[in-house]
Amino acid sequence: MALPEQDASSQQAFKAYMAQVADQVASFLCDDMAARAKSVPEHLRDTADSYLRQPGKCLRPALLQLCCAAAGGDAQAVLPAAAAVEVYHTWTLVHDDIIDHDAFRRGQPTAHISGAALGRRRWRLSEAAAADYGVSLAILAGDLLQGRALSLLASVPARPALALALARRMSDWLTPELLAGEQLDVELSHCSWEEISEESIMTMMRQKTGALLAFCATTGVALAEDCPPQDSPVAQAMGRCAELCGLAFQIQDDLLGLSGEEVSFGKPIGSDIREGKRTMVMRHAMAYCSAAERRLLTGILGHATASADDIAAVREVVTRTGSDVYARKCSERFLAEALQLLESTLRPTPQRELLRSWIMAMVRRNR
Amino acid sequence: MALPEQDASSQQAFKAYMAQVADQVASFLCDDMAARAKSVPEHLRDTADSYLRQPGKCLRPALLQLCCAAAGGDAQAVLPAAAAVEVYHTWTLVHDDIIDHDAFRRGQPTAHISGAALGRRRWRLSEAAAADYGVSLAILAGDLLQGRALSLLASVPARPALALALARRMSDWLTPELLAGEQLDVELSHCSWEEISEESIMTMMRQKTGALLAFCATTGVALAEDCPPQDSPVAQAMGRCAELCGLAFQIQDDLLGLSGEEVSFGKPIGSDIREGKRTMVMRHAMAYCSAAERRLLTGILGHATASADDIAAVREVVTRTGSDVYARKCSERFLAEALQLLESTLRPTPQRELLRSWIMAMVRRNR
Repeated sequence: MALPEQDASSQQAFKAYMAQVADQVASFLCDDMAARAKSVPEHLRDTADSYLRQPGKCLRPALLQLCCAAAGGDAQAVLPAAAAVEVYHTWTLVHDDIIDHDAFRRGQPTAHISGAALGRRRWRLSEAAAADYGVSLAILAGDLLQGRALSLLASVPARPALALALARRMSDWLTPELLAGEQLDVELSHCSWEEISEESIMTMMRQKTGALLAFCATTGVALAEDCPPQDSPVAQAMGRCAELCGLAFQIQDDLLGLSGEEVSFGKPIGSDIREGKRTMVMRHAMAYCSAAERRLLTGILGHATASADDIAAVREVVTRTGSDVYARKCSERFLAEALQLLESTLRPTPQRELLRSWIMAMVRRNR
Repeated sequence: MALPEQDASSQQAFKAYMAQVADQVASFLCDDMAARAKSVPEHLRDTADSYLRQPGKCLRPALLQLCCAAAGGDAQAVLPAAAAVEVYHTWTLVHDDIIDHDAFRRGQPTAHISGAALGRRRWRLSEAAAADYGVSLAILAGDLLQGRALSLLASVPARPALALALARRMSDWLTPELLAGEQLDVELSHCSWEEISEESIMTMMRQKTGALLAFCATTGVALAEDCPPQDSPVAQAMGRCAELCGLAFQIQDDLLGLSGEEVSFGKPIGSDIREGKRTMVMRHAMAYCSAAERRLLTGILGHATASADDIAAVREVVTRTGSDVYARKCSERFLAEALQLLESTLRPTPQRELLRSWIMAMVRRNR
């Protein structure tokens, strides 16, 4: 299935739309933070709110609002739901950053790191006690945000039965899916490459990245149609469309982490190799390389001290085995399928065009 | 306000009722666990479910069901909500046990400890990596249970508007209250005794223990009356009644931790002293003792190696300052107020009698 060419003006329009959504969500969340939880101690409140004050691209709220508008709904009215999915995403980042021992996120210290700094400053704790305080704060802050996401979603102006159905879908389906994906991610990191199937990597990506995107799309459509997502063929099709985009995005992210340009990608090239991250492209390379190449890769993957030459050697094996081409084709197949779903599901509107631009922006993206 | 005498036969009836609720909740949760989350990896599922398979006394479900029945509702019909509050309580225990570094709960290893054992066994991890794996698992398991609590509550057979109102009350109010209490608990542990007001200890107990009990009582009444809890005077009054019982319970728990009998209490007497736990009784002793006694207490409280003689010395100061009598009177005042609220709010029914027995059981309890 061939993918159409990109179009610069529709990419511009999509970027402008995203910027507008990000502004609106930031402003909504700012008011919401001010209104909430006056009884919450300052450190906990600040830790929970810190990620929300540095919002990301707000892709998830944009997807929810675009799907709502494209299905004939009022994108403005569903802003609480759009804010809910951003807060939900943020919750998962806070706990994920503890689990992955990540120190930075969006250019700021992660919650457990800034929490440790609070512990040193306010309570004059030792390094170890401060680190512990930081982890406690981050656990509680993530918990607070999980609750807040549900609270925001439940406050969307919709029939109570629909709001309840959406809240149930978040807590019944989305949360177990996403947590299953996070656990699978942890487990795969402890498996040897031989034990890892492509299917398990796909499952992990589908649960960890695809499920929330699918939730955004189905929720947007459900709110537009005033119909529970599980009863709407349009919601189901758009959910699948968003899930496919999530898979494609993740595969391309892994490809860029291997051989993108550091400046435009924004994180160190080769860090996935040094961490030994279980990606589709690397699994393919491991499965199809020679015995000598496998020894080479085994000596480099997952070694924090791997040199630039080591990284280049890994890249060479990936090219030799055609694993980069394989993964890119797989990603493009998902995007082509997503495009087809989009166009067969929704009638043409400016919002459908913006959704199309989002999908197209992922084709051969470089950041 | 004098408290009436206890009555052995109504205590028996209350115990029998509690045992019956615990059985029903356990059986409901067992079916629910089997039905849920087939896509969740085994380690995560087992970790999340382990506390639920060793349920506690199920006081919170019993309180919800009794308040429902006493307000004229069908206690059987609201079983999903009763199970929800037990799962909710369990979620907070899983994360609390990580924060407090507790190794045992209900006679079993806590989630992060059993998770570490899984990491050693399944992934042959080193001690440090296994401990890390255990914490990750316990964070994710707690997250899973927070979602499940909401999902169960939202599934209660009620008008969608009421189920939604209850789900919002859990996520808008209860969760921030409870997390604020947990954070305050952590913060108080880092404060010097001079910095700690009785009010802050009361706030911590109200948020950490009282809020969930209040939620149980208001939810039970709200379901009986088919009316959102904030609009029901009966729900409000019973919420306050349950909160008072929570405060009284906590104060008595702290008194028992100081001078109860180890066999009947079930945890080591003096461990609160060795941990330096910020309790109302100890704060009172610290505030009203002599300078010499304060030096003595400061040298013992929070020292893990404190001897039995040290513990006895602390107890002596507590008696000398009348702090135990002060705390007991405070607890009894709360219980008397709770009894009065109960009797002025609900008309006499067998369920009101059982609630009364619960309150009476806390008067001079020894375990």
